[in-house]
Amino acid sequence: MAEKQVMIFALDDSDHSFYALEWTLDHFFPSPSTSSFKLIIVHAKPNPTSVIGVVGPGTTDMYTMVETDIKKTAQKIIDRAKELSKSKGVANVACEILEGDARNVICDAVERHHASLLVMGSHGYGTFKRAVLGSVSDYCSHHAHCSVMIVKKPKPNN
Amino acid sequence: MAEKQVMIFALDDSDHSFYALEWTLDHFFPSPSTSSFKLIIVHAKPNPTSVIGVVGPGTTDMYTMVETDIKKTAQKIIDRAKELSKSKGVANVACEILEGDARNVICDAVERHHASLLVMGSHGYGTFKRAVLGSVSDYCSHHAHCSVMIVKKPKPNN
Repeated sequence: MAEKQVMIFALDDSDHSFYALEWTLDHFFPSPSTSSFKLIIVHAKPNPTSVIGVVGPGTTDMYTMVETDIKKTAQKIIDRAKELSKSKGVANVACEILEGDARNVICDAVERHHASLLVMGSHGYGTFKRAVLGSVSDYCSHHAHCSVMIVKKPKPNN
Repeated sequence: MAEKQVMIFALDDSDHSFYALEWTLDHFFPSPSTSSFKLIIVHAKPNPTSVIGVVGPGTTDMYTMVETDIKKTAQKIIDRAKELSKSKGVANVACEILEGDARNVICDAVERHHASLLVMGSHGYGTFKRAVLGSVSDYCSHHAHCSVMIVKKPKPNN
């Protein structure tokens, strides 16, 4: 059997993201044992400093608290993803929690694993937020050196 | 059996586009009869006026010539796509040749067919061309009301 291609699924904590993961499991792994992909779920957790701002005297406790909270949240997200994958019969899933800006973390993971496909949910940022922050999916669809699938959650009236 | 979801494949005449079609047939239609998608291939052919510029006295012959040429080219592209699909065992493919700006034609087709997935190749425009012309895949990934898959052709050294 040919070596499986690597699919990176970039997961955040949004409903969009979990909808996208379910869609991916249903459409790319309908028969998990014969799928041509190996699934790696990547979650980018923020750096505590990026959450609380500048670290200085008197912020050590807050830094530790925030760091612990970020770790717990990230683990919960990954646990939920593993459970969802298992419920769809996709047991052989690798998961990575990585620290940093999601755009860099995701594109780096694509390179490191020589992925041929990156899948992510659409984040539905409004125009303002998109213009200010840039959009993770926009950035990755331009910069990731592989095919990119953006899964959008259908609107209720569709 | 549940009703099949509609996948629109947006085809142009580039190698990228045919690579993307082959990838799509391999990955979404590995067992064509049991695939959950119905495939519609859409090709946007330019309006003759957009090719030769303003139509005025004396340009009628040129207009007809250009129009005939565009029609022939479009039919060749669709024939090649049908042949490729057939060779992969996907016989039940609908094809549409539509006139107009690819961005509008593609997004309109998604609406009209209530598609749940749009697939297209990446066009590899350079920064300058992207900035000036806008990119069809960029536009569609933002504006199409469905999930979007951009298939990139791997670089030879990958």
